[in-house]
Amino acid sequence: MLIQSTPSSLSDILRQRRQRLATLIDFPAILWSGSNIPRNYPGNVFPYRANSHFLYFGGLPLANAAILLEAGKLELFMDDPSPSSALWHGEMSRREEIAQIIGADAARPMAELESRLEGAATIAVQDAATWTQQSQLLNRWVLPQNPPQGRDLELAKAIISIRLTHDDGALAELRKAAAVTVEAHKAGMMATSNAKIEAEVRAAMEGVIIAHNMTTSYNSIVTVHGEVLHNEHHHHPLQPGDLLLADVGAETSSGWAADITRTWAVSGKFSSTQRDIYNVVLAAHDSCIAKVQPGVEYQDIHLLACTVIAEGLVDLGILQGNPQDLVEIDAHALFFPHGVGHLVGLDVHDMEDLGDLAGYEEGRLRSDRFGLSYLRLNRPLKPGMLVTIEPGFYQVPAILNDPQLRSKYQDVVNWERLSEFADVRGIRIEDDVLVTPQGREVLTNGLPTEVRDIEELLNHGR
Amino acid sequence: MLIQSTPSSLSDILRQRRQRLATLIDFPAILWSGSNIPRNYPGNVFPYRANSHFLYFGGLPLANAAILLEAGKLELFMDDPSPSSALWHGEMSRREEIAQIIGADAARPMAELESRLEGAATIAVQDAATWTQQSQLLNRWVLPQNPPQGRDLELAKAIISIRLTHDDGALAELRKAAAVTVEAHKAGMMATSNAKIEAEVRAAMEGVIIAHNMTTSYNSIVTVHGEVLHNEHHHHPLQPGDLLLADVGAETSSGWAADITRTWAVSGKFSSTQRDIYNVVLAAHDSCIAKVQPGVEYQDIHLLACTVIAEGLVDLGILQGNPQDLVEIDAHALFFPHGVGHLVGLDVHDMEDLGDLAGYEEGRLRSDRFGLSYLRLNRPLKPGMLVTIEPGFYQVPAILNDPQLRSKYQDVVNWERLSEFADVRGIRIEDDVLVTPQGREVLTNGLPTEVRDIEELLNHGR
Repeated sequence: MLIQSTPSSLSDILRQRRQRLATLIDFPAILWSGSNIPRNYPGNVFPYRANSHFLYFGGLPLANAAILLEAGKLELFMDDPSPSSALWHGEMSRREEIAQIIGADAARPMAELESRLEGAATIAVQDAATWTQQSQLLNRWVLPQNPPQGRDLELAKAIISIRLTHDDGALAELRKAAAVTVEAHKAGMMATSNAKIEAEVRAAMEGVIIAHNMTTSYNSIVTVHGEVLHNEHHHHPLQPGDLLLADVGAETSSGWAADITRTWAVSGKFSSTQRDIYNVVLAAHDSCIAKVQPGVEYQDIHLLACTVIAEGLVDLGILQGNPQDLVEIDAHALFFPHGVGHLVGLDVHDMEDLGDLAGYEEGRLRSDRFGLSYLRLNRPLKPGMLVTIEPGFYQVPAILNDPQLRSKYQDVVNWERLSEFADVRGIRIEDDVLVTPQGREVLTNGLPTEVRDIEELLNHGR
Repeated sequence: MLIQSTPSSLSDILRQRRQRLATLIDFPAILWSGSNIPRNYPGNVFPYRANSHFLYFGGLPLANAAILLEAGKLELFMDDPSPSSALWHGEMSRREEIAQIIGADAARPMAELESRLEGAATIAVQDAATWTQQSQLLNRWVLPQNPPQGRDLELAKAIISIRLTHDDGALAELRKAAAVTVEAHKAGMMATSNAKIEAEVRAAMEGVIIAHNMTTSYNSIVTVHGEVLHNEHHHHPLQPGDLLLADVGAETSSGWAADITRTWAVSGKFSSTQRDIYNVVLAAHDSCIAKVQPGVEYQDIHLLACTVIAEGLVDLGILQGNPQDLVEIDAHALFFPHGVGHLVGLDVHDMEDLGDLAGYEEGRLRSDRFGLSYLRLNRPLKPGMLVTIEPGFYQVPAILNDPQLRSKYQDVVNWERLSEFADVRGIRIEDDVLVTPQGREVLTNGLPTEVRDIEELLNHGR
């Protein structure tokens, strides 16, 4: 790459980050960036994505590079481009130029890394070429699927404690990703009236992201089958009675993510049953966001979502009983089987490469309860954390037709009443919420959540 | 995946393909499909792309599957989805259903493959998880970077001989990819007048591809710096005097590719210098296409492009001398340093996972001549082959400022005259041409090549 423009403050931001790291560990850390990954042949690669830990401390999406962090200093290891690469890839920034931009204290060819490995910790990169190199150089297995151990674990915990709360440099990028994602969702809503299949709405949304020279931070979900939680098919026709669920987010060129979901009526107008359930999910969404503030346990926000959804479904006659009791027996999870959200940062599920180390406070483990096992975040909130709030309602055949679940919950579900809501297959409303010292700020608040405001966008130009 | 709709003829197409294979080899072949590849963490994967050899004989983009081909029979090995996957990924087609769609003679769980490995050949898949599995099961290294040997080489040659010429099933898909790519380029041209940066034009083009539920067959090049041959940056502003070079292609859901390049004037009107050079490249493009027919050596088409470009540059006073002589000393390669094209099929550089085995006729090797070394195809043409024709003109600083090249070619380049063409950084015109028994058919001929027709599209709605 040729570095075109970077904030003059990048080197300051990176210096502060590695100084924070130096207060937490007293041994060297080496972070590799990763390499290009072949798609169907070596010359046809997936769009390059640098490792997130590297991006956090190295700042730029360099390929085949490594940084050595020790005592607040950064040394960059990478090879200069070959002369022939100028023909194919243009003039590339050289190691020394890049070192200056990121404020490195030294810049050396990759071969010199070998003499600097003594006592160094690292974190496994996802691509096999790089973790093989990490393992060979460090003379121990560094595998992305293995939990880190020893110094690697100490390093992971130190990095997590830093990355859990976002600095100003991170927030500037996260705001950019959020703003573009808001525009993408608006474009999707406005494109729906002329679209015949899901893919056309997806195109309108991703078009906004691409036009801003960003990429998607995960594979887009744009589907009339919202009941399939990770539905990545886009070929279904749009029918007037359908709800369309769109879970689409942008990622800036330096890797910072956004993550928004909206659900809207293909026809431009929600049916009364769709509106009723939508408003239950929206009540959960709004209540949970109002609860976000420092010191609050994220699991309690999840349980609040469960309770508000249970209350709403009781009011609609779909569930029967006391909402609190229903949540205690996980009856809400028949319709809301996932967690209310997760961390967002350089990864859309931030630091999930480290399993639950980031999401779960030390000493806590995933619950095996039906209504809690999919919760990805279980920590007290702190200022600077960015989390999603994303309650939902789904009629998942694999759950609702499960004989064991049907029998367990036969007395609390009014199946006949539920059958009146057949036009609600899946609804989710998701925003990205920053924990602030005073409470919260919704980074994605440019996008409406109320039915009437969404309908206005849907009918724009109709 | 849940299989939604497939041509009823898919099983017939696949049966014919494996029967052709059975006439060429007398040992079993096992082709693996590959697995999902993590992007920044295991749950965030790149869009899945199945291995092309698997797709050719297996027909569907299945993940974590293998097919055993022997004596014209196909056995499918894959595991049924787990019950919990129905929650996240919806109802998946089961092995038996898939087996029926592709006309498999048997369908078995993956674990049964272990007992069927005796004497089997294979081809390495690109992703590490899968080539590790291939290597472990077959008890030999099966590495994508190593040339195949022994039976694996025999298998590779047999598959190449089949995939080199496209059957009706392949052509139907290739035509779909070409048609959508034509629309994408038209959209790019029409979006240019309102675009401020390259990424906005890219968005208009990829939007068409996404809307048709296809993907790009390679990372798009949409750039005002066409002189950077593989320029994958899209952040440059569009200036009125710029040419924009767009090399963008679609890939159908079953993996078949298209590959088109057009170059147009950002302002809507080519300058006289831009038009002059454009017409030199277009003359080469048209001459080469007219020469495509069975029996013709593709290298001769490349040399024809070189000659027509040399003639044109002599006419413009940029080169001096006899065009044939100029080509013999590779003077054309100062401005046209790459080959005139390549095979297209399931891979946009078809079968390049096998190095030059597919592109180069047995016994032929790459030339080390400056003007020939980047030629990717060196075979006599046969009916059913699909090739690109993509001559170009570039002012590559790494070439034109190279002291050795400047000295070698000092007498044949009129550098002063060349300096008058500074507003032409890079031009390429690329179409996909099918070799037919009678001659040729341009699959991408719905897209104009003439300056006046392109200007009409550029000014559409201005």
